Amino acid sequence: MQNSIRVGIAGYGNLGRGVETAIQKNPDLQLVGIFSRRDPATVSPCFAETQVYAMDSLSDFQDKIDVLILCGGSKDDLPQQGPILASQFNTVDSFDTHARIPEYFAAVDAPALANKKTAMISIGWDPGMFSINRLFGEALLPDGETYTFWGKGLSQGHSDAIRRVEGVKAGVQYTIPSTDAIEKVRSGTRPTLTTKEKHQRECYVVLAEGADAKAVEQAIVTMPDYFADYNTTVNFIDEETLKKDHQKMPHGGFVIRSGNTSDEQNQVVEFSLKLDSNPEFTASVLVAYARACYRLNQMQQYGAKTAFDVAPGLLSMKSPEQLRKELL
Amino acid sequence: MQNSIRVGIAGYGNLGRGVETAIQKNPDLQLVGIFSRRDPATVSPCFAETQVYAMDSLSDFQDKIDVLILCGGSKDDLPQQGPILASQFNTVDSFDTHARIPEYFAAVDAPALANKKTAMISIGWDPGMFSINRLFGEALLPDGETYTFWGKGLSQGHSDAIRRVEGVKAGVQYTIPSTDAIEKVRSGTRPTLTTKEKHQRECYVVLAEGADAKAVEQAIVTMPDYFADYNTTVNFIDEETLKKDHQKMPHGGFVIRSGNTSDEQNQVVEFSLKLDSNPEFTASVLVAYARACYRLNQMQQYGAKTAFDVAPGLLSMKSPEQLRKELL
Repeated sequence: MQNSIRVGIAGYGNLGRGVETAIQKNPDLQLVGIFSRRDPATVSPCFAETQVYAMDSLSDFQDKIDVLILCGGSKDDLPQQGPILASQFNTVDSFDTHARIPEYFAAVDAPALANKKTAMISIGWDPGMFSINRLFGEALLPDGETYTFWGKGLSQGHSDAIRRVEGVKAGVQYTIPSTDAIEKVRSGTRPTLTTKEKHQRECYVVLAEGADAKAVEQAIVTMPDYFADYNTTVNFIDEETLKKDHQKMPHGGFVIRSGNTSDEQNQVVEFSLKLDSNPEFTASVLVAYARACYRLNQMQQYGAKTAFDVAPGLLSMKSPEQLRKELL
Repeated sequence: MQNSIRVGIAGYGNLGRGVETAIQKNPDLQLVGIFSRRDPATVSPCFAETQVYAMDSLSDFQDKIDVLILCGGSKDDLPQQGPILASQFNTVDSFDTHARIPEYFAAVDAPALANKKTAMISIGWDPGMFSINRLFGEALLPDGETYTFWGKGLSQGHSDAIRRVEGVKAGVQYTIPSTDAIEKVRSGTRPTLTTKEKHQRECYVVLAEGADAKAVEQAIVTMPDYFADYNTTVNFIDEETLKKDHQKMPHGGFVIRSGNTSDEQNQVVEFSLKLDSNPEFTASVLVAYARACYRLNQMQQYGAKTAFDVAPGLLSMKSPEQLRKELL
């Protein structure tokens, strides 16, 4: 019997690097290699011993990889790669376009089932751990309301939007959950809150030479969809400060369920994350679910699966006996 | 096919009343009745339509109950009832003597397996939801520390200890988690903390006539095991205030995992509960797991199971498709 679960990484950006790093913390997993669309000679892995191969050579590794972690993006990569790779490997991915999950699930389910593979989709923290906690909240307190807050976190989409504004040389945007709104929810009053009431937006902007700060600020705070309906603050900083203080990718958030078990008894269940590095944490979740994916496949649980289908015990390195003794 | 899962309640104290109430919030469950060791004529259920039967008549109900929720205590009732009832029914219980869980698991596992029943043990919030979150923390952040804080909560054992002190007429004790310790943990510094550093004890005492307050306070704060090593405060109140302000059974706590995905990146995962009623919330968890218990039994998953063995989706009234669409 083999001693460890053999893992491959398909796609090597921030998430792929996070997976490479996370595998080091999981002694029962063994990294077979990184598979990249770039020329392998141009890819520099985080660890010298990591092998890098061409994505095209993946099918030669069908007998050498127990679980392949797909680290591509949800917009263009996964919809195309997921179904193909799920016919050849057990896979884990972080597909996070919430509205398209049912469609993606079906697209991956059929090839996985046909080839007796297990394909875990939409793993990470949202979707993923947050989803599990939304489910727990509803199931444990059927008479209640669920609130999801995001942040404090760097938002890629909003940062891109800022950078498209005329007069902006560089910039980042943080989504900040409203402390007032969180406290209201925690108090058990079950308030009605829109996404906009729950979050503020904080921008750090480096102006282009000669740009008018007032005009840039105005263009940002009035931008429809992105900023107009939010409480948005714009801070102007120099390039050096941007490099020094805003290179990390923090994120996190809160899932709070407030409910009543009877008229007088309010109960509040809260799950939260405070992450220094969004991609490293997401990667760490993917790696734990790679273990579960392998085990589900061994149990002949084929087809597409989500975090809802995984018993917590399957995520752990420890045996069921150990878990009951040490953690229950 | 039957429309709802038929549930029985064995034992009718605070927890049993909570289960009776929780079933009302779960339209796919149907209460068959309460089974009590007391004379059924002397038992007053929360809802007029609830049937009350003698515990001895339980075996006549083997074909009428899909899941039996055991609401007895962990010290005397469950070790005796659990193994017997698991041979006749699918069962869910809240066995919470942590150190004896492996032994209890084995005692329930054998009769359940032999009779193709499913016996869910140690369900509730600790053990239960807190256990799941300790497991998630370890699995998602293998390089880290887990911290469990309890409270603010009424502690039955410590309240009993106070009431045994000479000069005390009545009293309650609350366990309070230390705000300082929680903040230290949240900051990601992974401090070393003993249970005593993590909690304070707050006592509300009604003095017996003629008792010496100073002496009572001294006897409490120096009581070995219970109070001596804690920061303990004693508040003297009159009987009316005790009745008015201290009849609820609040509880809760925090499970926090602080870990590193790489040297520079700290990640904090936190789960917390703020409960107005400890028994009603525990009951609500038992009821959600009764649904999962029934489903596991339908899937031929026999024997003893814990919260670690239950995929989150099994807890929900919703179908897997609905869950993926609405909650993922």
